[in-house]
Amino acid sequence: MPADADLTLHWSPRSPFVRKVMVAAHELGLTGRIALHRTVVRMAEPNPELLPDNPLSKIPTLRLPDGTALFDSVVICEYLDELAGGGRLFPAGGPARWQALGWHALGNGFLDLLILWRNERDKPAARQTPEWLDSFATRAAAVLARLEAESATLEETPFGIGHIAIGCALSYLDFRFPDLGWRAGRPALAAWHAGFAARPSACATEIVDA
Amino acid sequence: MPADADLTLHWSPRSPFVRKVMVAAHELGLTGRIALHRTVVRMAEPNPELLPDNPLSKIPTLRLPDGTALFDSVVICEYLDELAGGGRLFPAGGPARWQALGWHALGNGFLDLLILWRNERDKPAARQTPEWLDSFATRAAAVLARLEAESATLEETPFGIGHIAIGCALSYLDFRFPDLGWRAGRPALAAWHAGFAARPSACATEIVDA
Repeated sequence: MPADADLTLHWSPRSPFVRKVMVAAHELGLTGRIALHRTVVRMAEPNPELLPDNPLSKIPTLRLPDGTALFDSVVICEYLDELAGGGRLFPAGGPARWQALGWHALGNGFLDLLILWRNERDKPAARQTPEWLDSFATRAAAVLARLEAESATLEETPFGIGHIAIGCALSYLDFRFPDLGWRAGRPALAAWHAGFAARPSACATEIVDA
Repeated sequence: MPADADLTLHWSPRSPFVRKVMVAAHELGLTGRIALHRTVVRMAEPNPELLPDNPLSKIPTLRLPDGTALFDSVVICEYLDELAGGGRLFPAGGPARWQALGWHALGNGFLDLLILWRNERDKPAARQTPEWLDSFATRAAAVLARLEAESATLEETPFGIGHIAIGCALSYLDFRFPDLGWRAGRPALAAWHAGFAARPSACATEIVDA
């Protein structure tokens, strides 16, 4: 634990939403203030230790010095940006803010979809709902087409919270959906993601099988 | 359609996240700028008309005058607040902002949970995952206990986006989980919600069976 940590993060090495917070913390130079507390959450089983901090039993959840806790990842990331002076990963206003928040929401929504997809895919076949699996696949393809079309804009825009969310979502595809081959036919997005994955903040937080 | 509408909202009368946006629009005096476009979304079936505006095929999605589209409801609500001058439903900074954003995230997370719960509950029994149903019930009870404990603070704090999200989530319980009897043992929260439900913005957007 960092010696001068005054924040505690309910953390897991494989949660893409936790990773998003950690990438932000690295980019903002705040990792020294955050103690990591390994917290296991599962769809099927609320974590009784987590419920007092977050009754939704989800991570990331960030405990503050006054004992209160902040969630979800969107709120935590903006809070960290503010701690670091503000306006660094979250543009303060105007079109740049809506661009960043829109990408942030797209990355988060993509992750939500991928997590539901994985939950459904990994069920016994008799419990699966095939139309849901089809719907997840169609929507994931639509998101990837959109991102490929916006790769040049992503590249040109100062790095921010939207880039972090999209980068983490694409890396999650590599981790949980390697057979999807998302790079095929999407060379601009693949090139953009390679740049994201090479950032020190991404390297330091990469999700790998233990 | 309002004569001077320059925004188009992909809208449905029964989506609680759409309702949240509409409550915000009423509170901010912006309903005259928003044309409502009925858009059906289903978990099992992406809506091809919606995909160009939102590849996640989710509502609310707000089309702006320049042809681009904003989502999710969190981003749309903050955008509307900014259109109305800023700092009205989203406190500009400091502890008031984190309080409001935290409640907003709690209300949204509660709605996400309730929607997943309803999807699971309404499946054929052979396809249900019983541990998920138990988990949803436990977490919903934890959220309600937290909200009951925070009712006095909700009451004392200037009305904002957090109140809207929590109010819409509790009303959604009434609509989709009437048998849960969420008011039992939670008199302070029930009283707070009665005040929310009596606001003109809530009355104008109430979700009812057609």
